[in-house]
Amino acid sequence: MSGRTFFTVGPSQLYPTVKEHLREAIEADIPSISHRGAQFMEMYESVASGLKTLMGIPDDFHIFFLSSGTEGMERVIENCVGAKSAHVVYGSFSKRWMAASKSLGKATEEYTVPMGEIPSLSDTAFSEDAELICITQNETSTGGAIAPADFALLRKKYPNALVGVDAVSSAPAVPLPWANVDCVFFSVQKCLGLPAGLALLVVSPRAFAKSEEVAKQMSVGSYHTFAELKKYADKKQTPETPNVLAVYLLEKVLKDMNVEGIEAVVGATERKAKKLYDFLASQKKFTPFVKKPEGQSETTIAVTVEGGSKPVIDALKADGLIVGSGYGEFKEKHIRIANFPAHTEEDFDRLISALKALSV
Amino acid sequence: MSGRTFFTVGPSQLYPTVKEHLREAIEADIPSISHRGAQFMEMYESVASGLKTLMGIPDDFHIFFLSSGTEGMERVIENCVGAKSAHVVYGSFSKRWMAASKSLGKATEEYTVPMGEIPSLSDTAFSEDAELICITQNETSTGGAIAPADFALLRKKYPNALVGVDAVSSAPAVPLPWANVDCVFFSVQKCLGLPAGLALLVVSPRAFAKSEEVAKQMSVGSYHTFAELKKYADKKQTPETPNVLAVYLLEKVLKDMNVEGIEAVVGATERKAKKLYDFLASQKKFTPFVKKPEGQSETTIAVTVEGGSKPVIDALKADGLIVGSGYGEFKEKHIRIANFPAHTEEDFDRLISALKALSV
Repeated sequence: MSGRTFFTVGPSQLYPTVKEHLREAIEADIPSISHRGAQFMEMYESVASGLKTLMGIPDDFHIFFLSSGTEGMERVIENCVGAKSAHVVYGSFSKRWMAASKSLGKATEEYTVPMGEIPSLSDTAFSEDAELICITQNETSTGGAIAPADFALLRKKYPNALVGVDAVSSAPAVPLPWANVDCVFFSVQKCLGLPAGLALLVVSPRAFAKSEEVAKQMSVGSYHTFAELKKYADKKQTPETPNVLAVYLLEKVLKDMNVEGIEAVVGATERKAKKLYDFLASQKKFTPFVKKPEGQSETTIAVTVEGGSKPVIDALKADGLIVGSGYGEFKEKHIRIANFPAHTEEDFDRLISALKALSV
Repeated sequence: MSGRTFFTVGPSQLYPTVKEHLREAIEADIPSISHRGAQFMEMYESVASGLKTLMGIPDDFHIFFLSSGTEGMERVIENCVGAKSAHVVYGSFSKRWMAASKSLGKATEEYTVPMGEIPSLSDTAFSEDAELICITQNETSTGGAIAPADFALLRKKYPNALVGVDAVSSAPAVPLPWANVDCVFFSVQKCLGLPAGLALLVVSPRAFAKSEEVAKQMSVGSYHTFAELKKYADKKQTPETPNVLAVYLLEKVLKDMNVEGIEAVVGATERKAKKLYDFLASQKKFTPFVKKPEGQSETTIAVTVEGGSKPVIDALKADGLIVGSGYGEFKEKHIRIANFPAHTEEDFDRLISALKALSV
């Protein structure tokens, strides 16, 4: 099956060094080592410091492991919301986060725009008692994104609220303004180019303090409360037996990306995205689902296909180019293309050539 | 680092076929496939049916994926307990399950015996309003176990309560009486010989019905409520992006174990355990922490070492035999030895020879 390139929006193409790291992990008995031993603790420490270096995360923020981005939605609500959360909704994943909050018994407020449109954060009008504003930085379902620079508006407008960010399909390729965010979660099978089954949760001191307040009033969970996560993180461990193999691979990939440098990672992401959007503007069969240029995702690009997406997906597949179908109701209308650090400029040249051939 | 044999109680030695399956998974791009695609759905279906065959699970029980046994503790309480759970406590993991229930805001009752002793289920006297009786079938912290045949007592004594079983470090090597249990969870890095980062939750129709009742009264979580798990399981999918690679490996190992046959797996477990306990009875330096023979775990054996465990752990390590230290307060007093399907009779002969040399 070699020769295939996965442009699916996650799980996706592995970062180029991962297969070799995985083979080395097998030889080094990584799947058998103890999650309470020194070797694991060094890995945890290295991941936390590697991630802080790569993403510019302040030293006093906490780095916790979760098992999925979906778990991130739950844990951030449980730990940071006593009564009410507010949600900026512009696709299926932002909607899902709001649904999680409702399921957890919280009141919610929402500012919703139709799928394909991009909300302006200055148009939100949440109540003063909203404890957490939930922002999906990159909306994988529509190929939309909210510029992280705009998060400053939320701090100004809602000084008493925490800002929670779903960066599942953009971190670390899209930089975040850490002064303006409190809880950020993302999973490793997107921009980090790893096998699925591990996610990261970054928590500000302010959000941690809030979780302590909420915990005085109600249950905030059991083994994955912020307090339990911190208790174990202080020992460079996790409350449960985690996906040790994924933690090992993450450590290696963070080292590789830090050698490459975050500017190179971000720059390549921007260049490849521009190349694809320039192509989309040059013909008529394929058009970006999101029209507003500043709201077009750089990392997960949704493309409306004239005549339906299935024949295009099949034709690309025959060329070894695996792209995703549309999300939900757009399954047969869109293709979705990931632009992750694992994807080289050559991969994008090849994909664009193939799309060009299909566009005439 | 080859040549080492891990007798640690999990993560532990990989089942003999796993390294090859892992190499094949890399070649077949398993880390890149979609968790919403046909290939994953076939894997889920195969795991569910393979597990039902291997463990004799009734057809109408649900098979769900979680990310750890610790998550199993949380989800079973959240979904099955409105107000009160009851706990049989005889070590750190049974205690932890009770602590999880308290953290989740439930009232708890307990029947506790000192570590190293084995509770008799007929001695329990829980109230009629206890909704779930929580039993840790195999207590990894002490090397103790409760005979599954005794679960029938609970059904008789508490006909209105569900029976929840932590089988983390015994399933599938110790058979369970499915007529007498409702929720069973276990993780893959123990008796299934896989890398950590995935767990299974088996739910009876009665427990599922109870979760629907509880959900009418209170929040039972968000993405991992029994209802959400079932909604996706009906599509052979999971609510979140799961550890796809582990699901792949699990499918392969279940097939391998079904070829071997459950009788062979159980028989080998019993033979290796008997061999080790017979050796322990033959000398004085090493003694089983659990004295009562019928309460001695077959799969995780805790051994008190005269003079302390560290020199023994180090000496065995020099021979390539990795055993675990004691749990918690017993860290420097005990060694713990896993007897999982991954461990051959030859592995046990080698370990026992080495222990014998150290016992004189």
